[in-house]
Amino acid sequence: MMAYDDTNIFAKILRGEIPAYRVYEDDRTFAMLDIMPQSDGHTLVLPKSPAENLFDLDPDSATAVILSTQRVARAIQAAFSPDGMLLQQFNGTAAGQTVFHFHMHIVPRYENQPLRGHSRNMADSELLERHADKIRQALNDTA
Amino acid sequence: MMAYDDTNIFAKILRGEIPAYRVYEDDRTFAMLDIMPQSDGHTLVLPKSPAENLFDLDPDSATAVILSTQRVARAIQAAFSPDGMLLQQFNGTAAGQTVFHFHMHIVPRYENQPLRGHSRNMADSELLERHADKIRQALNDTA
Repeated sequence: MMAYDDTNIFAKILRGEIPAYRVYEDDRTFAMLDIMPQSDGHTLVLPKSPAENLFDLDPDSATAVILSTQRVARAIQAAFSPDGMLLQQFNGTAAGQTVFHFHMHIVPRYENQPLRGHSRNMADSELLERHADKIRQALNDTA
Repeated sequence: MMAYDDTNIFAKILRGEIPAYRVYEDDRTFAMLDIMPQSDGHTLVLPKSPAENLFDLDPDSATAVILSTQRVARAIQAAFSPDGMLLQQFNGTAAGQTVFHFHMHIVPRYENQPLRGHSRNMADSELLERHADKIRQALNDTA
């Protein structure tokens, strides 16, 4: 396995070097909108610890990630009322991984709306900010 | 949210009423081959508690599921040496859920092999038994 490369874009976001549409954060995890969303509300949950993938994620981080995923998914459900919710997590280029810091995708599904391509088009920043607000508001409402 | 329906096929498997290609089991989780695999080694990890989806999975079961997923994924990696590994979990028909008991898909990805369709074709039973053996063996080797 390759060593973790701390110049990846999510490592920079976690260090605060570049901005993100943050929706949730706790001691072990960080959640933000995917800036190339496959559907409205598409969110990523990251461990703060430097893990490239599922195989090198420590157990405490794995636990924190799934519990934050559940929490954020509930807020997305409240904020966007999608018809379904897809979790996806890619390990390795052959599986579709593009950023080499572990991240869980939470992808809302809407009836009769095919998913947009993964990592294709950057969404409008005002729209992303509005969507992030909706999720943060829902998290506050359920806290 | 609908009440959990305990006549679903995974509930029957967990009660031992119908057989499965079991690869792993502990107090809280159960892992078995998907009998309509999207790729060789495609495995499902289930909580034993009656949860329909991510939203009604209790925290202890959520934790157990992700830790078992990690453990079984490592065994699949050792057994099949895929080029990548995809996790997927579907909530609701609109997201592709077909059995209404929570399950995490572990889907090995192989270079230049597109995934077969989800829930399309039943695999050969001898092949599945051989694949389950490989994963069980790998779990024993790493235990």
